[in-house]
Amino acid sequence: MSSSAVQPVTKSERTRALIRDVALTSFRERGYDATTIRLIAQEAGVSVGTTNYHFASKNDLVQELYLDVQLAHRDAAAPLLAETTDLVERLGAVFRTGLAQLEPYHRFAPEFLSASMSPRSAMNPLSEESSPARDIIVGLFRDAVTGAKNSVPKEFEEGLPSALFLAHLLLALFWVYDKSPGQQRTNALLDRGLRLLKLSLPLTRVRVLRAPLRELLDMVAEVKV
Amino acid sequence: MSSSAVQPVTKSERTRALIRDVALTSFRERGYDATTIRLIAQEAGVSVGTTNYHFASKNDLVQELYLDVQLAHRDAAAPLLAETTDLVERLGAVFRTGLAQLEPYHRFAPEFLSASMSPRSAMNPLSEESSPARDIIVGLFRDAVTGAKNSVPKEFEEGLPSALFLAHLLLALFWVYDKSPGQQRTNALLDRGLRLLKLSLPLTRVRVLRAPLRELLDMVAEVKV
Repeated sequence: MSSSAVQPVTKSERTRALIRDVALTSFRERGYDATTIRLIAQEAGVSVGTTNYHFASKNDLVQELYLDVQLAHRDAAAPLLAETTDLVERLGAVFRTGLAQLEPYHRFAPEFLSASMSPRSAMNPLSEESSPARDIIVGLFRDAVTGAKNSVPKEFEEGLPSALFLAHLLLALFWVYDKSPGQQRTNALLDRGLRLLKLSLPLTRVRVLRAPLRELLDMVAEVKV
Repeated sequence: MSSSAVQPVTKSERTRALIRDVALTSFRERGYDATTIRLIAQEAGVSVGTTNYHFASKNDLVQELYLDVQLAHRDAAAPLLAETTDLVERLGAVFRTGLAQLEPYHRFAPEFLSASMSPRSAMNPLSEESSPARDIIVGLFRDAVTGAKNSVPKEFEEGLPSALFLAHLLLALFWVYDKSPGQQRTNALLDRGLRLLKLSLPLTRVRVLRAPLRELLDMVAEVKV
């Protein structure tokens, strides 16, 4: 688990950090459904009222989990991004380190999926509430794209990071359904997808494909809830 | 609503058909969450026990809804498929008529989505329980592919219908999130996707792309829950 961005100093901040850490451990060990505010309060040795004071809802704690996972994702991707300027290798590094963060949660993934898929859910990765965590990964994909020597034409660069974030969510969806040992099928799908991307990349410079590709990319990039 | 495949003759069959029709009307008018076995029994003028005798769970009624929607989809696509032998036009006909069937359910789509997304849900479109409804649409996509004059290379034909069914589910997912009037953004996305497909189709014959394309297609086609 990565540490909180803010080091707790006051008693209130320490209590908040404790509740948060207890909740994140519970999400990882018990899953989403079985983690309740009452249980977290009990384990943190505080009242339900204190827990509610720091986190108004279970979703607020899920957002802490999202942030924790995404900060760890960024930390894991950074050294790999420093090693290559090839676009497809850079994207592979971001996708692979993203999947690696999810691994401890696979057995509970159906619960998180059911709770987050509705466009009305605050836990939806595309929701307003999830934007701090989302911004980290969109930013990571932006770094991967802009730092590549063999990047796509400029006109694709604006929409691409958000479209790649959606691709990351679709890959995570495939992973939720993946029952193979160690979810190796998801990794194989990613490898094959990246291989095809590498072969197809020159097509982004073919004039007749460029406009429809960009239009499609921009529509996908605009998906929100 | 399309009629049941089996015309009811006995009293028991008539009761079953009545319960089914009441349930399907309720799903359309009240959505998934507010439709209960108790309410259906009440409106059909039968006991909860009788309802349970014919449909052991709410999921059994959802499967009737799926079948109803998919049979209507097939009926709507058939005359359009008779009009063209162009692959992309044929796929467009299947995708468009598929979206048209979903239209009455848009306001309740988040409920159906939350209940069906888990790989553990019997309502999942990829579940064993959903296979009768799924087979109709996979078959429809197979007809669209095999009946085309300008179809893809033979080696793609086996996996393609299942992969197209997944594309149909992803398009439906986009549609659930689409708040534009009449979900016109989903139709625009489909139009642009088809345009790009038309332009890209010759690439399925490029030797270097063929193997990775087929591998990816086959992996996607094998997704199940």
